[in-house]
Amino acid sequence: MPSTIYDQLCATVREVSLIRSTESTLSWDQETHMPDKALAFRAHQMSWLSGKAHAIATGRMMQKLLDKAQSTKLRDPKAAANLKVLVHDFQREAKIPGKLVVEESESASHAKHAWIEARKQSDFATFAPHLEKMLGIAQRKADLWGYAEEPYDALLETYERGTRTREVAALFAKLKPDLTQIARAAVERGKSIKPNLLRGHYPVAKQQTLNAEIAASIGFDFKAGRIDTTTHPFCTTLGPRDVRLTTRYDEKDFTSSLFGVLHEAGHGLYEQGLPESDFGLPSGRACSLGIHESQSRLWENHVGRSRPFWQRWLPRAAEIFPHLRKISLEDFLAAVTRAEYSFIRVEADEATYDLHILLRFAIERRMVSGKLAVKDVPEAWNAEFKELFGMSPPDAAHGCLQDIHWSMGGLGYFATYTLGNLNAAQLYATALRQRRIASAIELADYAPLLNWLREKVHTHGGAPLPGEIMQGATGKPTDARHHLKHLRERFVG
Amino acid sequence: MPSTIYDQLCATVREVSLIRSTESTLSWDQETHMPDKALAFRAHQMSWLSGKAHAIATGRMMQKLLDKAQSTKLRDPKAAANLKVLVHDFQREAKIPGKLVVEESESASHAKHAWIEARKQSDFATFAPHLEKMLGIAQRKADLWGYAEEPYDALLETYERGTRTREVAALFAKLKPDLTQIARAAVERGKSIKPNLLRGHYPVAKQQTLNAEIAASIGFDFKAGRIDTTTHPFCTTLGPRDVRLTTRYDEKDFTSSLFGVLHEAGHGLYEQGLPESDFGLPSGRACSLGIHESQSRLWENHVGRSRPFWQRWLPRAAEIFPHLRKISLEDFLAAVTRAEYSFIRVEADEATYDLHILLRFAIERRMVSGKLAVKDVPEAWNAEFKELFGMSPPDAAHGCLQDIHWSMGGLGYFATYTLGNLNAAQLYATALRQRRIASAIELADYAPLLNWLREKVHTHGGAPLPGEIMQGATGKPTDARHHLKHLRERFVG
Repeated sequence: MPSTIYDQLCATVREVSLIRSTESTLSWDQETHMPDKALAFRAHQMSWLSGKAHAIATGRMMQKLLDKAQSTKLRDPKAAANLKVLVHDFQREAKIPGKLVVEESESASHAKHAWIEARKQSDFATFAPHLEKMLGIAQRKADLWGYAEEPYDALLETYERGTRTREVAALFAKLKPDLTQIARAAVERGKSIKPNLLRGHYPVAKQQTLNAEIAASIGFDFKAGRIDTTTHPFCTTLGPRDVRLTTRYDEKDFTSSLFGVLHEAGHGLYEQGLPESDFGLPSGRACSLGIHESQSRLWENHVGRSRPFWQRWLPRAAEIFPHLRKISLEDFLAAVTRAEYSFIRVEADEATYDLHILLRFAIERRMVSGKLAVKDVPEAWNAEFKELFGMSPPDAAHGCLQDIHWSMGGLGYFATYTLGNLNAAQLYATALRQRRIASAIELADYAPLLNWLREKVHTHGGAPLPGEIMQGATGKPTDARHHLKHLRERFVG
Repeated sequence: MPSTIYDQLCATVREVSLIRSTESTLSWDQETHMPDKALAFRAHQMSWLSGKAHAIATGRMMQKLLDKAQSTKLRDPKAAANLKVLVHDFQREAKIPGKLVVEESESASHAKHAWIEARKQSDFATFAPHLEKMLGIAQRKADLWGYAEEPYDALLETYERGTRTREVAALFAKLKPDLTQIARAAVERGKSIKPNLLRGHYPVAKQQTLNAEIAASIGFDFKAGRIDTTTHPFCTTLGPRDVRLTTRYDEKDFTSSLFGVLHEAGHGLYEQGLPESDFGLPSGRACSLGIHESQSRLWENHVGRSRPFWQRWLPRAAEIFPHLRKISLEDFLAAVTRAEYSFIRVEADEATYDLHILLRFAIERRMVSGKLAVKDVPEAWNAEFKELFGMSPPDAAHGCLQDIHWSMGGLGYFATYTLGNLNAAQLYATALRQRRIASAIELADYAPLLNWLREKVHTHGGAPLPGEIMQGATGKPTDARHHLKHLRERFVG
């Protein structure tokens, strides 16, 4: 039996986490294996679980335990840090009335359907009232939560605790001129690289063999995880030793599933590296989306598109796919770092990806503050796109209708993708300063790098703020310098 | 909101079912996909769910609703039948104190481990104290439940509601002389059939193609179900339109996975045929194990090992596995109905299977009544085996240690396998009396047969007793005649 108030609090918090992990298990099954007709009942199961979790997470018992725990002196600094996060989360959750939670979930369900249709027809007008609705809910939530400087702060807090909109805006403003310049140079260079060099026939089963070997080689533990197939790749954690990745396969290009696996395995390594005994507590969960994305980007781009990596893996890939034998390492590296402008974010390469994020952040921030009306979003999007990319989307499907996020109420989310890229570059550059890590990497041995990430990032979980993680690991808050340097070396160099 | 007491009762009962179906989903994942290290946390998730379900199923609210519903007049006969079953189940569950439930589950967990070791070493002494423990718990449960004639009645009631031990014993006594005679003749005939006629190389992916085609052709709905791979095949229902089958593959013999799929698909067709709108209520669930097994055996043996079935499917199988082209229909049928004596029940063929059950039923009944001491089980087993099969198991692993059931406390379960065989033969013979069904079957068209089973068996769910299902469908209670006739025609002929 739990003896102290803090222990009792932890037991209650862990119960909520156990219920939510059960929900995640059902959700994973739904995405990967569930037959179509099972959908309606699955929704009942999920909403039952979600109701139970919510009731405990926001209930009187939780409140009482939090109050009592706050009035006791917690000597253990980890306990104190956990308590701080739990109070923070509880207060935020308690500020949103149950009615609004239901309204948001129902509106999101309608909005998602409308978005699918609207994108198909490339018809923004169909989606506009739903976006209006979701934006209104986000604004009401921001007001209920409260904010220091602008309503967007309150939304960003959901994904990147302790980070201000102003800070992100400053980083992005600093990035913008350099990024557009780098992207232009990268796209120019990309024109000299043969676009279809790697085209061929790559049977799914053989891709799976290679992907699994590579994921295992960078440290992903297949006794505590697995890889399945879905249309939209993701990583989800079902328990302290149960991390599920997914990818999708293109039989004409094996690098599509492979870089997908490296990205998701980056998320997975983080989840597998969180302290098992703290599962369910802030100290046992991921810190923020910006930190999470730093791990996926680090393995996908800094490791996965590097020369030493392919020095090691191209010969193996050529064993599995014999027609790769005629491709030189030089040509292969050029092919997997070839840049071009594209309208669709999820298809964007490393050199142009952040431009898509800068655009979304600017648009969202203005929408949330009320400076940009929903009806004016397409025009604003296209103007901003023209400025960043030098071209205009042919239609709304290739413009402001392309992402699912807004239909789900996920305003404030996009910024974390670029924060992830900045963090990835900064962490990787800092790790490389250790000769032991750098020389192992030259031989495609990533164990020292992973150990460093475990120690500096993973093991701290989510009790510290993302800024504290970055400060502790690199001696500095998130900065644009390393990412720009990396992009310049890779794409302009 | 539910308006009547009965509606409220149904809502509560459905909530229990929803929680248990969630548990089934986690359990399915555990058997099919879960990584090894996830086991401990999965156990926590499952026991949380099971605790919630148990609390509602046996709680005061449930008792109050049942009491109130019993004091109202239910005009709808289905509602009245459901209420009767719910009261029956509640009273049985309420009679077992929570402490005993925990004791049983913990003892079973130890017993299962001990059984695995004991079977590996073929050492009954290691398992004996655990069997003693599980038997004692079963006897205490039987006493708590109460019984009309002998304690075994109370255990049988768990699996075959409304069926008395005496009735089963009478059926089995009638079967015994004929079955041993048929088995002897079948084994004799089997000696003239080449045992390895179908040996070859059958890649798993190709087996999966054939199995899926066949399962779909007999009516299994893949939009409401799927087939995965496990060591021990099973069928589990995760929701009203979500039935999951599993099978295992032998790359040297495609019939192993195929008959497995036909068997599990038989269970699956039953589950898919239960009334969707009654899911969670007695009228929306399977009636009994003996009825369930009748469906699996009917499709596996009566349909799946018949001439018209292979007239249709052997050419298709030979398309997929070209070396089958040289095998005649005659030889193929002989191969899939070849009988031989074997020590292991799960490997037994149709002609000898029931002998294994007769043995277990006799041993169990004597154990439960206290007439056979645990220490004397191996000797009693071997003596009974000698009488039925004319040979003696070489060791306990091939004798009384072979089955998992006792380690799980599943005393009273085995009889339902043979009841299933009897029911299968009786249902199939009755259906065949309709010319429309019989002539369709000659063309391997099973839609009319499935429709008949839907109407006579599936659609009634578990509100009636198994005896009432059999009476309604065939005009008679379960009888030995049809099964014996079928075996004679197939194996003695």
